[in-house]
Amino acid sequence: MNRNARLLLRAGERLDDLQRAGLRIIQNPDLYAFSVDSVLLASFARAKHRDVVVDLGTGTGVIPLLMWARWRPARIIAIEVQPQLADMARRSVVLNDLEDEIEIVEGDIRDVASRFDHSKVDVVVCNPPYRPVGRGPKPDSPVLGIAHAERMFTLSDLAAVASRILKSSGRLVVVYRPERLAELIFELTQKRLEPKRVRFVHPMPSRPAKMVLLEAVKDGGKQLSVLPPLFIHSQDGSYTPEIMRLYSETDGSGEG
Amino acid sequence: MNRNARLLLRAGERLDDLQRAGLRIIQNPDLYAFSVDSVLLASFARAKHRDVVVDLGTGTGVIPLLMWARWRPARIIAIEVQPQLADMARRSVVLNDLEDEIEIVEGDIRDVASRFDHSKVDVVVCNPPYRPVGRGPKPDSPVLGIAHAERMFTLSDLAAVASRILKSSGRLVVVYRPERLAELIFELTQKRLEPKRVRFVHPMPSRPAKMVLLEAVKDGGKQLSVLPPLFIHSQDGSYTPEIMRLYSETDGSGEG
Repeated sequence: MNRNARLLLRAGERLDDLQRAGLRIIQNPDLYAFSVDSVLLASFARAKHRDVVVDLGTGTGVIPLLMWARWRPARIIAIEVQPQLADMARRSVVLNDLEDEIEIVEGDIRDVASRFDHSKVDVVVCNPPYRPVGRGPKPDSPVLGIAHAERMFTLSDLAAVASRILKSSGRLVVVYRPERLAELIFELTQKRLEPKRVRFVHPMPSRPAKMVLLEAVKDGGKQLSVLPPLFIHSQDGSYTPEIMRLYSETDGSGEG
Repeated sequence: MNRNARLLLRAGERLDDLQRAGLRIIQNPDLYAFSVDSVLLASFARAKHRDVVVDLGTGTGVIPLLMWARWRPARIIAIEVQPQLADMARRSVVLNDLEDEIEIVEGDIRDVASRFDHSKVDVVVCNPPYRPVGRGPKPDSPVLGIAHAERMFTLSDLAAVASRILKSSGRLVVVYRPERLAELIFELTQKRLEPKRVRFVHPMPSRPAKMVLLEAVKDGGKQLSVLPPLFIHSQDGSYTPEIMRLYSETDGSGEG
């Protein structure tokens, strides 16, 4: 660890290697650590070199870092309401020398989005809170409580904000829980966000899906493609070749 | 072929063995022949021994026959608007000596459903027309045109009729095209039919889904389960063991 990196770390934090493009990320395992959801989303999302990408609820900024490593879009703006997480994300951007490419904005997504020019964004990505408030187990920390429950940000908010800031034919890409897929589709469809590509992620071929990756196109036609399923483990318990590939993916390789 | 069966056949028709419970079905390959969709739906749908099942748009009656073979529900009422198909279905019921178990009703689903007592049906099954009118290739026959396009029966009609005749907690089970899954979910959700189980059918593990099996529960809670995918062929092109099993399924075996 170099001196610069040490200076950027606060108590309880650690520096993790993202295993691609030399990127590192500051995380605090007591508060929030990214998981496979974000890795899958950053790969599934796709972005072109001229695209402006907005990440709604970025947490520690892992999705902007992975998307930059994978797709090199022109600019990524990442919004986070929780000061501790936004601060970690900002320091990770500095640490990786990506201040010109990635901007971390602290604030409520609903307020921040209203500052954008309408209909200018190419891609919105989001790993949204999964749980309606009051459902599911009690979170380990208030930070996780906000990150995982719909306290700050419902599916309806997500659809409204994404639809407002996306240009026509712009794409919203989310990772979500299959249990709430019907609600997700309902809310998106009501806001002119037409689901176009969906991929289910199963822990194993014989198990129900645990995650769904979904891409919706603003003002898109009604034609959904359900891609081949993604399995995390083979039936024998080992990681599948695709997951091994995803975890070592850099610009130009992997899912196209 | 026994004398009785011969008497029931008209020009151009043939008698096919359904490979279970000794059942046979009258089909006319020029008009309409059932496909894997119906076999998968009859297995996925599930019914209890006391259930009243309604099949909306039964064609030649293959789904009632397969559901009877697989689940032995108390009664199956199958509706078909096209006289030629309803007539074939009725003769297949006679041929199999199932007049007490399966009733074929000729008529428009929207009219016939209004004759049912509201909220009395346990299970509604449907292999609906897939195409909006005017889209897709021209059908080979007018009979197929009605069977495959939404001329007589839109997704919105399906949701409305199913919601009206199903009892609370009753189930609608459909096989459909993934391309229109978002529309299907939207229409069902608007009619209090909550998607609960969904299974995607892929021709091969590496290919997008070609069919989706979906079960919705009237007044059900919001909790969707995306089951393990069903593959028709293995990557080497052979039928998968599950498909082999489905095609020889009789009462008491197979998917539970």
